[in-house]
Amino acid sequence: MAGKKTRKPQWRGIFPPMVTPLLDRDRLDAPGLERLVEHILAGGVQGLFILGSTGEAPSLSYRLRHQLIERVCGQVAGRVPVLVGVTDTAFVESVNLAVKAEQAGAAAAVLASPYYFPAGQPELLEYIGHLVPELPLPVFLYNMPSYTKLFFEPDTVRQAAELPNLVGLKDSSGNMSYFHRLQACLADRPDFALLVGPEELLVESVLSGGHGGVCGGANLCPRLYVDAWAAARAGRLPRARELHDRIMAISGSVYTVGRHSSSYLKGLKCALSLLGICSDFMAEPFHHFRAPEREQVRAALARLGLLK
Amino acid sequence: MAGKKTRKPQWRGIFPPMVTPLLDRDRLDAPGLERLVEHILAGGVQGLFILGSTGEAPSLSYRLRHQLIERVCGQVAGRVPVLVGVTDTAFVESVNLAVKAEQAGAAAAVLASPYYFPAGQPELLEYIGHLVPELPLPVFLYNMPSYTKLFFEPDTVRQAAELPNLVGLKDSSGNMSYFHRLQACLADRPDFALLVGPEELLVESVLSGGHGGVCGGANLCPRLYVDAWAAARAGRLPRARELHDRIMAISGSVYTVGRHSSSYLKGLKCALSLLGICSDFMAEPFHHFRAPEREQVRAALARLGLLK
Amino acid sequence: MAGKKTRKPQWRGIFPPMVTPLLDRDRLDAPGLERLVEHILAGGVQGLFILGSTGEAPSLSYRLRHQLIERVCGQVAGRVPVLVGVTDTAFVESVNLAVKAEQAGAAAAVLASPYYFPAGQPELLEYIGHLVPELPLPVFLYNMPSYTKLFFEPDTVRQAAELPNLVGLKDSSGNMSYFHRLQACLADRPDFALLVGPEELLVESVLSGGHGGVCGGANLCPRLYVDAWAAARAGRLPRARELHDRIMAISGSVYTVGRHSSSYLKGLKCALSLLGICSDFMAEPFHHFRAPEREQVRAALARLGLLK
Amino acid sequence: MAGKKTRKPQWRGIFPPMVTPLLDRDRLDAPGLERLVEHILAGGVQGLFILGSTGEAPSLSYRLRHQLIERVCGQVAGRVPVLVGVTDTAFVESVNLAVKAEQAGAAAAVLASPYYFPAGQPELLEYIGHLVPELPLPVFLYNMPSYTKLFFEPDTVRQAAELPNLVGLKDSSGNMSYFHRLQACLADRPDFALLVGPEELLVESVLSGGHGGVCGGANLCPRLYVDAWAAARAGRLPRARELHDRIMAISGSVYTVGRHSSSYLKGLKCALSLLGICSDFMAEPFHHFRAPEREQVRAALARLGLLK
Repeated sequence: MAGKKTRKPQWRGIFPPMVTPLLDRDRLDAPGLERLVEHILAGGVQGLFILGSTGEAPSLSYRLRHQLIERVCGQVAGRVPVLVGVTDTAFVESVNLAVKAEQAGAAAAVLASPYYFPAGQPELLEYIGHLVPELPLPVFLYNMPSYTKLFFEPDTVRQAAELPNLVGLKDSSGNMSYFHRLQACLADRPDFALLVGPEELLVESVLSGGHGGVCGGANLCPRLYVDAWAAARAGRLPRARELHDRIMAISGSVYTVGRHSSSYLKGLKCALSLLGICSDFMAEPFHHFRAPEREQVRAALARLGLLK
Repeated sequence: MAGKKTRKPQWRGIFPPMVTPLLDRDRLDAPGLERLVEHILAGGVQGLFILGSTGEAPSLSYRLRHQLIERVCGQVAGRVPVLVGVTDTAFVESVNLAVKAEQAGAAAAVLASPYYFPAGQPELLEYIGHLVPELPLPVFLYNMPSYTKLFFEPDTVRQAAELPNLVGLKDSSGNMSYFHRLQACLADRPDFALLVGPEELLVESVLSGGHGGVCGGANLCPRLYVDAWAAARAGRLPRARELHDRIMAISGSVYTVGRHSSSYLKGLKCALSLLGICSDFMAEPFHHFRAPEREQVRAALARLGLLK
Repeated sequence: MAGKKTRKPQWRGIFPPMVTPLLDRDRLDAPGLERLVEHILAGGVQGLFILGSTGEAPSLSYRLRHQLIERVCGQVAGRVPVLVGVTDTAFVESVNLAVKAEQAGAAAAVLASPYYFPAGQPELLEYIGHLVPELPLPVFLYNMPSYTKLFFEPDTVRQAAELPNLVGLKDSSGNMSYFHRLQACLADRPDFALLVGPEELLVESVLSGGHGGVCGGANLCPRLYVDAWAAARAGRLPRARELHDRIMAISGSVYTVGRHSSSYLKGLKCALSLLGICSDFMAEPFHHFRAPEREQVRAALARLGLLK
Repeated sequence: MAGKKTRKPQWRGIFPPMVTPLLDRDRLDAPGLERLVEHILAGGVQGLFILGSTGEAPSLSYRLRHQLIERVCGQVAGRVPVLVGVTDTAFVESVNLAVKAEQAGAAAAVLASPYYFPAGQPELLEYIGHLVPELPLPVFLYNMPSYTKLFFEPDTVRQAAELPNLVGLKDSSGNMSYFHRLQACLADRPDFALLVGPEELLVESVLSGGHGGVCGGANLCPRLYVDAWAAARAGRLPRARELHDRIMAISGSVYTVGRHSSSYLKGLKCALSLLGICSDFMAEPFHHFRAPEREQVRAALARLGLLK
């Protein structure tokens, strides 16, 4: 296939999944958003991913999602590519979001499987085959089985990767055996970007040939993740390990307050608020940490040397 | 509480979860819809529930959902109450749907938990406490853990039931022990309607004091389910068992072609199409049965005496 | 098949899954055991099932299991049939247990699927086909998916039911739709006994034609469950409902102290100890309730009028 | 604690989980066993682990397990340490197995959580606290949640690690974030060995500081896994990646014939039989591959250059 030969590897590096700063459930924290975007970009990241799970996209009204797309694309103004989550249970709404993103200047769309009805793999492949060509942007698949109840199986990805505008996959399964199977399946497609979601797996995935990470912690300390990616990519093992340990220290303290699976998201927003970057308001069904949890996060940030 | 005393038991009977007849992913099968509504109402049902799981609501665009609400409410014109699914991952979109439903003349809204992020029970209760008062209609909770990853625990329901416009719960968990725990929890609230989802459990739930069913098969044979409900309610055991066996015969043949969890929905739409009622087109991520499965459904309908 | 015609329906009624009274992890509470057996038999039960999940069988040494089989069969001395759990991950150990049970005078063996490796249905059917003929007793299958990770699918049961010494199935899935599918599958086999595990489902399963129950609460109040079974079997609906409510009152209080799935077992043993019947010691990995939980169980028993 | 200071790091390297060569369900393939042990030892492994999941331990009679312990310990005769799986649902049987292993000359016992009843973490910790001191050998915990339904949470491991004879943990969860949390938790305990189960994760776990692997493929090509471990340990990244790719090539072909979770085990035994090392008979509930699957495995071995 001629097309394949001309595809150049790109989409390497750190693409932080930006949290969505909110004042209430349907109102952006506009100054916080502005500060957050600049804070992240100052860390040298290779792109910015909005409206993912970390961005609470499914909990936001379409009106607010459109507003966020416009503001962020406008502010970034081409300094780095902006990726926009367009996952939806309704085909047409995914198209609508992608059209909006393209008009606003986004560089790519990110698509998880529909997450209400669990489809079989042949149906999932057909869904991708119908939807991706309708999206006016390069597209990343987004493997997020804990929320969608569905894996993109390696064979499905292999076949989907033939679509001209499918450029990569972000894997948030946390299952590195699966990630390695994807790598083996796509060994002849260096242009197809394989990014990892959980930041705890960033270093090892890049050491094994992965292309980068969509690391939530890069909202907080973007430079750390960029450095870890670069060290792993260059095979500088002692440095990569040192930065990995630092990532684990954040993960093991900021994201583990309380006992719910939402601790990661609440801890991250709480930390950003403690650093004075943006509000920690969360859209339903979540609520932000109350005082006792906030104190735990504050103490963790202090121990990590992240509080000025 | 004075309010409680004046609440009268209602919402008893069969409220079919209507399939959504489609010509393609974003276009209603308008004549099929009209025929389907009349077919169901002719069966003597006590209400009509649109935009539930059987109605493929999460797979439909908001534009089409609004159109469906208008058309169905217009056609039913008060002959029976229309219940409208308003479940959404975004709070504001649920409110929007309920406002639309109220304006169109719907009688109630039906609300499952948000289904992307799994909330804890305290968060779920808070979510209900914030959202239900904003909905301009009586509200049913909709327990659907296989799709939402979340149970409405009995304590949560007990507390939520204090909200003035929360009038009942539809349980599609398939777990009758849970249903009985709900009944025990709400023994002093005969006005709070407990409806069961899976039609295989209709008779036993009504025999145990449940108030009715949201039975998918009532798209096909509405009278059968109304009769089964009435027999069970009256304690006419031999008749109730006979009708239960008939329901099991449908369930065990029409809904079990193929091996996916979507067999129920595909079989039901296929059967409606074979009976000449409406199109069997399905919204992504599903597709309708191809010829071999269609023949199996045809044979099942013939054995059941449902093909003219 | 000639054999089928001569099989007479039997195995109707209540077969309590007896708890195993222990003094420590490898020592029977012999006087407690003796009292418990008499207490249960005095309730008019149709049989006694030892070494099931409620009997903590997998947690007991083989030596102690053998001892229990001997003692109980000896004490019961043919007054009712004794059923013995022979489930094991190792084929040969299941045979050994069944041989021991047969020698001691047991009337039937009860067999769940192997519970470490999850087999597919064809392998499960083959396993049954190999093992059941080697067991020198009539055999019940025992569907317990929450512990074994595996369902006996209706087709598998239908085929297995051809084995001459397979006489029934105990379903502890809690899924009444599944139970009804089994009933439909085996409609021409009234000799094949379908018993239900969870006592919350006893009345409805018998109303729908089920043959009885393996109710844990019958360790505590055997007569209640026998009466509920008889009322449901006779179609005496008001009486059956009243007894069902009583069962739910026990289930909703005695089995729900604490938040673990082991609450049922701990609550039951604790209640038996509070009634002076036997020790509440539990084999690892569980431990008996400490004082605060014990007080909650005591209060529940008092409210239920079960404490003298 | 003085004891801690004197503990020397050991248990580094590759400890193959040996398959159990069988002629039928209760008979060892004695010559095959002998060949297999020598084949593995010739690869330079650091130890040998018998009676794990790959060894089908739960499916074997106790008699046969004892026989296997004796034969293997006798044949190895101290050339490398032999680790013996003693996991059981019954406390006493675990002790019995460990006593037998110690008498035969085994070097360590390996203990997963009881796998029928799911315990809570406090109960699991108490269980370890009671059982491990009764085992007359150094003990490894074995985290195998897909079969046991239970994780050893990092806090539980941290506390358990205080037991004098608890020397390490084998993690077969496949979740590297969990593995890294364990590493962080035990950063001050370099003597506590952290081994990884899935061979697809061997290289990355060792690059991150893990101590070795319990790799099923080392039954087949022991040298490959020893080399991969050594390269990763030495930080020779290009070499480690090359060997990792080779491991993935085996994993992606030999272990993926058929669609069941048992494909790994069946493929591995089938491959050993095709190489003339031992029988591929499997204990119930599994059966060995039939001719078509066998041909697929043969073709995979040929492609991999493993068939002479």
